[in-house]
Amino acid sequence: MANNEESHGDPVNEVRSLSSVPKAVVGRLSLYLRELQNLLRQGNDTVSSTKLGKALGFSDAQVRKDLAYFGQFGYPGIGYRCEELVAEIKKIMGTDRHWAVALIGCGNLGRALLGYRGFFQKGFKIAAAFDVDPSKTVGQFEGIPVYDIEELGTIAKQHQIRLAILAVPAAAANLVAEKVAAAGITGIMNFAPVTLNSIEGVSAVGVDLAIELEQLCYSVVKSNDNNLS
Amino acid sequence: MANNEESHGDPVNEVRSLSSVPKAVVGRLSLYLRELQNLLRQGNDTVSSTKLGKALGFSDAQVRKDLAYFGQFGYPGIGYRCEELVAEIKKIMGTDRHWAVALIGCGNLGRALLGYRGFFQKGFKIAAAFDVDPSKTVGQFEGIPVYDIEELGTIAKQHQIRLAILAVPAAAANLVAEKVAAAGITGIMNFAPVTLNSIEGVSAVGVDLAIELEQLCYSVVKSNDNNLS
Repeated sequence: MANNEESHGDPVNEVRSLSSVPKAVVGRLSLYLRELQNLLRQGNDTVSSTKLGKALGFSDAQVRKDLAYFGQFGYPGIGYRCEELVAEIKKIMGTDRHWAVALIGCGNLGRALLGYRGFFQKGFKIAAAFDVDPSKTVGQFEGIPVYDIEELGTIAKQHQIRLAILAVPAAAANLVAEKVAAAGITGIMNFAPVTLNSIEGVSAVGVDLAIELEQLCYSVVKSNDNNLS
Repeated sequence: MANNEESHGDPVNEVRSLSSVPKAVVGRLSLYLRELQNLLRQGNDTVSSTKLGKALGFSDAQVRKDLAYFGQFGYPGIGYRCEELVAEIKKIMGTDRHWAVALIGCGNLGRALLGYRGFFQKGFKIAAAFDVDPSKTVGQFEGIPVYDIEELGTIAKQHQIRLAILAVPAAAANLVAEKVAAAGITGIMNFAPVTLNSIEGVSAVGVDLAIELEQLCYSVVKSNDNNLS
């Protein structure tokens, strides 16, 4: 709050001085970013809040309110300049730079994630993979070297790794998360079907693929009901 | 709207007469469901809206407002009965029954999903897998038989499959989605990094794993900023 005056009008300083932007707003930023990138690919240089919102099922007021948390990005009579807003949102999210990521656990899911091109397109590079199985830690998958988990600390420092993806069995997840934290990594994306114990200074997101399927289920049931009524 | 009077006070009929509950509300239902199941495992029979909200970072008012879309579930002086509310939310989501699912594409990601236990725990059973590669369609993975994609229509009818998970390359996704629709399947969970063309009568959700990583990135950047300030 001390730098309230300095930060006025500077979106980056503003977000840094905000104690907490609602999680749902940050979630929608990712959606705006993807839609703006789509618009750019289709040759659109500018977009109105109405059009941007409509493509995603939000009102224009919602779009303007969400973005206002981070600064003033629209131009009267023009709307948003797509390329500029893409750059601003990336700066806010921290994806304007490249992130080195460690993937831990090289079973089927881990190997699938090593080959998942969506990460690289968004600025995330899996720099190294880790496992406990000696038959895996001698080689590489998808061109990415696989190390013994005990080497995590050394390799993480070497590659300046700050994020880790956990694709390990549920029973191992909390122990692995502690090793990750000890290696100085501060962000964990957890695919193991278990809630991680919270670790001081480490942010974690759990990925539960069944939630998406459950949401789909609701749409299918609802659309059947609408057709029958 | 014709059955407005009949549906009064009956949550199930009420949800069916609602033309559209906001997507974010349906998203939160999944979170309430998981938290209620956690509470039950920990031996809690009842929970207040305050406690339920707090565990998920929502206000008590938000919890009550969300649930009010679907009916009246709380008891004065008691709160919610966990087991009852779990059953009600499952009924709303459509996961009070078992769903047979087809998995299409048996590469690394597809095989990882075949072994993902989170689906089965939530009432989804992958009944059959499909691929175009003859070397894969002669066997099974994780105990699930793999068929040629051309058999989708026949097998879908046999097993009453209504949902499909697409784990195919981006270039094949739209063609596969059409085959899925032709087989009478009305829900698609798409892992291919491409937006599917919309198909009449088919609901689709796209899974973009990079979005979760991007959200994590924001938390890491923000927490670093907070530590430095």
